[in-house]
Amino acid sequence: MITAAALDRAVRAALEEDAPWGDLTSSTLLPAHATATADLVAREAGTFSGGDVFAAAFALTDPSVQVDLHVGDGDRFQPGDVLASVIGSARSILTAERVALNFAQRMSGIATLTAAYVDAVEGTGVRIADTRKTTPGLREFERHAVVCGGGSNHRRSLSDAVMAKDNHLAVLQQDGKDLATALRDALTRLPHTVHVVVEVDRLDQIPAVLDGGAHTVLLDNFSLADLREAVALIGGGATAEASGGVNLDTVRAIAETGVDVISVGALTHSARALDLGLDVRIG
Amino acid sequence: MITAAALDRAVRAALEEDAPWGDLTSSTLLPAHATATADLVAREAGTFSGGDVFAAAFALTDPSVQVDLHVGDGDRFQPGDVLASVIGSARSILTAERVALNFAQRMSGIATLTAAYVDAVEGTGVRIADTRKTTPGLREFERHAVVCGGGSNHRRSLSDAVMAKDNHLAVLQQDGKDLATALRDALTRLPHTVHVVVEVDRLDQIPAVLDGGAHTVLLDNFSLADLREAVALIGGGATAEASGGVNLDTVRAIAETGVDVISVGALTHSARALDLGLDVRIG
Amino acid sequence: MITAAALDRAVRAALEEDAPWGDLTSSTLLPAHATATADLVAREAGTFSGGDVFAAAFALTDPSVQVDLHVGDGDRFQPGDVLASVIGSARSILTAERVALNFAQRMSGIATLTAAYVDAVEGTGVRIADTRKTTPGLREFERHAVVCGGGSNHRRSLSDAVMAKDNHLAVLQQDGKDLATALRDALTRLPHTVHVVVEVDRLDQIPAVLDGGAHTVLLDNFSLADLREAVALIGGGATAEASGGVNLDTVRAIAETGVDVISVGALTHSARALDLGLDVRIG
Amino acid sequence: MITAAALDRAVRAALEEDAPWGDLTSSTLLPAHATATADLVAREAGTFSGGDVFAAAFALTDPSVQVDLHVGDGDRFQPGDVLASVIGSARSILTAERVALNFAQRMSGIATLTAAYVDAVEGTGVRIADTRKTTPGLREFERHAVVCGGGSNHRRSLSDAVMAKDNHLAVLQQDGKDLATALRDALTRLPHTVHVVVEVDRLDQIPAVLDGGAHTVLLDNFSLADLREAVALIGGGATAEASGGVNLDTVRAIAETGVDVISVGALTHSARALDLGLDVRIG
Amino acid sequence: MITAAALDRAVRAALEEDAPWGDLTSSTLLPAHATATADLVAREAGTFSGGDVFAAAFALTDPSVQVDLHVGDGDRFQPGDVLASVIGSARSILTAERVALNFAQRMSGIATLTAAYVDAVEGTGVRIADTRKTTPGLREFERHAVVCGGGSNHRRSLSDAVMAKDNHLAVLQQDGKDLATALRDALTRLPHTVHVVVEVDRLDQIPAVLDGGAHTVLLDNFSLADLREAVALIGGGATAEASGGVNLDTVRAIAETGVDVISVGALTHSARALDLGLDVRIG
Amino acid sequence: MITAAALDRAVRAALEEDAPWGDLTSSTLLPAHATATADLVAREAGTFSGGDVFAAAFALTDPSVQVDLHVGDGDRFQPGDVLASVIGSARSILTAERVALNFAQRMSGIATLTAAYVDAVEGTGVRIADTRKTTPGLREFERHAVVCGGGSNHRRSLSDAVMAKDNHLAVLQQDGKDLATALRDALTRLPHTVHVVVEVDRLDQIPAVLDGGAHTVLLDNFSLADLREAVALIGGGATAEASGGVNLDTVRAIAETGVDVISVGALTHSARALDLGLDVRIG
Repeated sequence: MITAAALDRAVRAALEEDAPWGDLTSSTLLPAHATATADLVAREAGTFSGGDVFAAAFALTDPSVQVDLHVGDGDRFQPGDVLASVIGSARSILTAERVALNFAQRMSGIATLTAAYVDAVEGTGVRIADTRKTTPGLREFERHAVVCGGGSNHRRSLSDAVMAKDNHLAVLQQDGKDLATALRDALTRLPHTVHVVVEVDRLDQIPAVLDGGAHTVLLDNFSLADLREAVALIGGGATAEASGGVNLDTVRAIAETGVDVISVGALTHSARALDLGLDVRIG
Repeated sequence: MITAAALDRAVRAALEEDAPWGDLTSSTLLPAHATATADLVAREAGTFSGGDVFAAAFALTDPSVQVDLHVGDGDRFQPGDVLASVIGSARSILTAERVALNFAQRMSGIATLTAAYVDAVEGTGVRIADTRKTTPGLREFERHAVVCGGGSNHRRSLSDAVMAKDNHLAVLQQDGKDLATALRDALTRLPHTVHVVVEVDRLDQIPAVLDGGAHTVLLDNFSLADLREAVALIGGGATAEASGGVNLDTVRAIAETGVDVISVGALTHSARALDLGLDVRIG
Repeated sequence: MITAAALDRAVRAALEEDAPWGDLTSSTLLPAHATATADLVAREAGTFSGGDVFAAAFALTDPSVQVDLHVGDGDRFQPGDVLASVIGSARSILTAERVALNFAQRMSGIATLTAAYVDAVEGTGVRIADTRKTTPGLREFERHAVVCGGGSNHRRSLSDAVMAKDNHLAVLQQDGKDLATALRDALTRLPHTVHVVVEVDRLDQIPAVLDGGAHTVLLDNFSLADLREAVALIGGGATAEASGGVNLDTVRAIAETGVDVISVGALTHSARALDLGLDVRIG
Repeated sequence: MITAAALDRAVRAALEEDAPWGDLTSSTLLPAHATATADLVAREAGTFSGGDVFAAAFALTDPSVQVDLHVGDGDRFQPGDVLASVIGSARSILTAERVALNFAQRMSGIATLTAAYVDAVEGTGVRIADTRKTTPGLREFERHAVVCGGGSNHRRSLSDAVMAKDNHLAVLQQDGKDLATALRDALTRLPHTVHVVVEVDRLDQIPAVLDGGAHTVLLDNFSLADLREAVALIGGGATAEASGGVNLDTVRAIAETGVDVISVGALTHSARALDLGLDVRIG
Repeated sequence: MITAAALDRAVRAALEEDAPWGDLTSSTLLPAHATATADLVAREAGTFSGGDVFAAAFALTDPSVQVDLHVGDGDRFQPGDVLASVIGSARSILTAERVALNFAQRMSGIATLTAAYVDAVEGTGVRIADTRKTTPGLREFERHAVVCGGGSNHRRSLSDAVMAKDNHLAVLQQDGKDLATALRDALTRLPHTVHVVVEVDRLDQIPAVLDGGAHTVLLDNFSLADLREAVALIGGGATAEASGGVNLDTVRAIAETGVDVISVGALTHSARALDLGLDVRIG
Repeated sequence: MITAAALDRAVRAALEEDAPWGDLTSSTLLPAHATATADLVAREAGTFSGGDVFAAAFALTDPSVQVDLHVGDGDRFQPGDVLASVIGSARSILTAERVALNFAQRMSGIATLTAAYVDAVEGTGVRIADTRKTTPGLREFERHAVVCGGGSNHRRSLSDAVMAKDNHLAVLQQDGKDLATALRDALTRLPHTVHVVVEVDRLDQIPAVLDGGAHTVLLDNFSLADLREAVALIGGGATAEASGGVNLDTVRAIAETGVDVISVGALTHSARALDLGLDVRIG
């Protein structure tokens, strides 16, 4: 969830990064009194995300600039649609333009990619979830964009849920620890409100994981057949989550194996910016 | 240029974002004394960027973790290559892993995409330059990655060079201003060390821009024929920069028109993360 | 978990609060070259917490001061025990003294009070847990102190687990919402890794809470008889947590009702500072 | 004095600590449109402190929430009294509730304890003063609470007045320094606006302290008889301050010895939170 | 350019530096309800700078204080002129007074000194430029003051233009590097928007500098005759800038040699504060 | 007192202000391997201040640069003296040079001016004190420089001592308050450790000020005769401080009137930077 404080901080930092000592172009080339109206125009189809952030880029540059959003976060649009209009000082609008677009293009890119995955599994009841493979500094913004695209968030950070992955298991194994025992021990040291996910890459690991008390079993890079078998093995005793080898071509078949959640790193680490432009109206 | 202070700040912020109150998994599941060796392995070919940042993620988590980089920033690698090794406390390594990878994958993705553009124009003497279409908060990191890929940086921000774009010209026109006069006026108000770029989208705009004293003429969305004509018109009186409609299929032909610089937003706004993994050695 | 970054930040802030422009007394009264040895002495019995913080207060004032901790966090001690010794510049030691003590006394006070509760329920298998009734700015420090005393932490913040309390239920009721439906709806909007606690103050509310999918039922201000009945009703379908009216006289009987967790606000909001002193050795 | 900037900073930090990424419960369980009225109710008698802080917790969460304070800082109240009312978005009120209470309960706890000491010395003209034994990060808030209870503040920090305590004297003695000379030397190095307090634990130390130019003599752990003798010895040549062994049973007798100030660490280090609750009105 | 964010940050920091925990004098001596009108009065002639900063000192202390500026930045005034009036809470006005004056006096001092240099070269078309010899932390404020005095800014920092000075040339020489080659190499590594200044102290260095591609030749400590010869040598191929030995007695003659820019460190490093006072109106 | 934390913070901020994204000149023009030795040379006589700050500018840029200070803070030097030497990476030295000099020149300028005042009153026993007319953000640095010059500091800020000035008295008068009563009331609301200064501009105000309990009487713009009379009136009942119309020509006569302290705003608001240079050794 992007709090008002986090939004304010991130947008201020971005504005400062992009104009630490003001906008030389606007301040020397444009008359102080000039006003403009500019439209945020979609140059391709997609799902919108980042309306508050787009608006904040202008408001934090100049509170007198007025931003009217014509779509809400999560809305779909077509090429040529005007998504928002901005009215006010020409200097202020052109100073804030790039930051506003950089956020909105990135967030809408993620929402659009997420929506494609969500569409692909429609009707299966499966959740499409993000991962921690996010852009440093922008995790909450990207998590919000995933939600705008109809996806679901995974744990926010290393501090709010346990996820034992292959590398953890390798360390335990090298240390001669039994997984079920290690998990049960960990649970006594954790707050009773902490959820525990354990990643496995073979069916035979699942009984120990359930025995250890995991709340979610993450099935990494399983074949479709093995996923089906895993779902049966887990049998409602934990949440079944699939990951690895997920793309728009494979996601439907994975969803149909009966897993509850499919987590997809690409939602955030490889979405491209959506093509949105800001056009000053002429005449 | 990523200063030591900026690197430290960004990596600390990313670590804090990913583990604000520690890593529940490592601290409850792994023995405090366990050590591990982990390799940074390329799962696809590419150009490396972000070695310092990768190393800092571990060092700032635990100064006793040792990171050996086997490639330097700008080096190319093949799938399966081990790019770095990390040795130390298993808890510390697994706590820092995701942040280290998030930076290295993103930066190497940008470097790899940039290198493809640079390769495509090899021998023409043209610079492939980035834009301000960067990830909020990570501009210097992405600019560095572009340089690692053999590219060149454009102005850093609105505060260090002037760039009059279509929207600025629209405001001037609406205000009834003559472009050449407006530019000359702006130059008297600017420090004598500030470089002025003016974007045009038609050949007939070029004489006024040169007359106004621009140091670079940015030719946006010109046909190849018009680019050639523009280069002739400019005749060395300013730097000729092309942008718009640039992709790996078109960039060579654009370069061969004689322009000096080609700027490409996609280098930073649409590079996908390169597939790099951290594997704990077993046995 | 107190991360190194959080510890550093809190101790620096405390030192700055207590000596924003240095220590006028030490710097004008004591010779620069004078050294001292000082002992941290317990003036009453208790359980120790805050060794790292105590040491950091000196180290961040002057890295050349040496701190030897004679007890570890969680250790019990008797009046007169020397818990730590500090050797180095007299100016530095006396500048850091108050901050070091303010942390250690408060944290040890909490650990000591927690230990009394934990002792009282010994053998029942019940967890004594803290609440969010912590000192603003010091939550992680106080949570750590609770763990030092043998207690268990509850959710860290509003952002990492759901807890529906009486006031939430009052709002839902006023809005005409059915609790079970509202809970099930909330679960679809939450990451699958989020734990849900629901507070009830009557037995008849429990079925709806279990039906809604709560992971923990918080039984607030229940009589001992009702607690026993609630435990039976819940029957292992969720964690049973008791709160309200808990003190050192009542906690054992509550624990014996069969609940899993007893949460106690007083651990953090009403622990008094433990009497610890720093004595410069004479002679 | 709590400045507007300090108040803003502390409350924002507390809100961020308690809901770094928003309130999962309110945002998923409560309708966005639901409003509520909630009362701050005293569950025991006391003296109020922290009205501005309580109000700021809501205002900084959501400026549209309205807070009406029915008592002022320093006012006394009885169990059941409604001290304030809060009207607005139910989500916002329940998000801010805990932070608002954590401040108000702690500050009112200190004010209430201070008032008990002040009441105990009524009519003697003695000041009840706090010490630097405050909660790290909250010194100004706790000093304000002491004033609300009718107490007086001591020096704010090591940077604004000199206080030579037993440990300083031990260092001087070990270094073979004469106290009166050391004090006089220190005074030449201090701004002429700096007040000097010297702590003594024996009557025979007082002449040197007065000779050295101290402005206040702090009589630590003196018997009542010695306090009386000390007051006579000091004879108006400096302020006489008592500390050590002060509690509600002893404070009156100490005050009647003729000292000017009694400083009491317990005011801040051992006050328990006052029991205040926030109740959403039903119906 | 002083951005709103930079102004806010600097003024808040100054207010905090001057009253970290409030103004003891106003808050204890003046009635809370007292209002006052105070005038900013020039006690000597000068050029004004810092109106926004002066106003912000009051506004950030107390938004209800009203500040009316009677002169604009860059305006000249005579002794006795009332430059601004401040109306509102007496406590707030006297709390903010010193910070407001410290900024306005310093900035107006710089503007006034700059104006003297600009007056001295009137009609020559030469720019009087500042240097990086500014007060740590206040560079943008001092650059603004220079502009208020009619001067021109030089590069803002080491990060936005290249300036090779004597010390750089000494290192290159010791390293056996050819200057022209070194400059040409540097240009290939720099963004095409970066301006390059090279400092020389002898005429015979100029051809290599021009050959290397410098955009500005900085002629340091040249005699008037050599300056004239240098201007001829440069012949419009670069900007000619003079520095060294510039004072109000010499600047006109230097300007008349035909250089384009004269940079003067004294504008910022040795301007004295202008004598401005704030007088509360009596009666 | 400049704490280690304050020094670190101020120097880092200055380095960031001067090279936010690195030093384009050094990094593109100088070989990475080049080393240099540079001397800090006095180009005029003076008193040194800022050695730690000078050294920190290099150390915080590059910890491998070695700085040897040949003079200590407070030492006097002659033109041509080498005050310090710096050895290490040429890039690092030239990146840090300007910041190091900006601090050292300003601080030594203040120390030198202060020393002139202190010399002028030699033998009188009078303190030369600074005021709050300091550069925003640099107060502790300037106060330290005053001490290096042999001067004494006044109160640090509005938060640590009371000073009632003409404007406060004007407000009190307009409000119909009696000064002595107002002062006595204020003293009851202040910590007993707070020093009270009252400014007067006429002899007849002094009795009320003494009656009110002021610890220092500040005699502003008094004639020499009136100063002498004021000193007699005060008669040791308070500290006598003079201010106004103080310059190097008048200060001796003022000192000889018998006042204890002379405060001089010019020490900090109008000291010019001392001419110090950093010269890379050749050959």
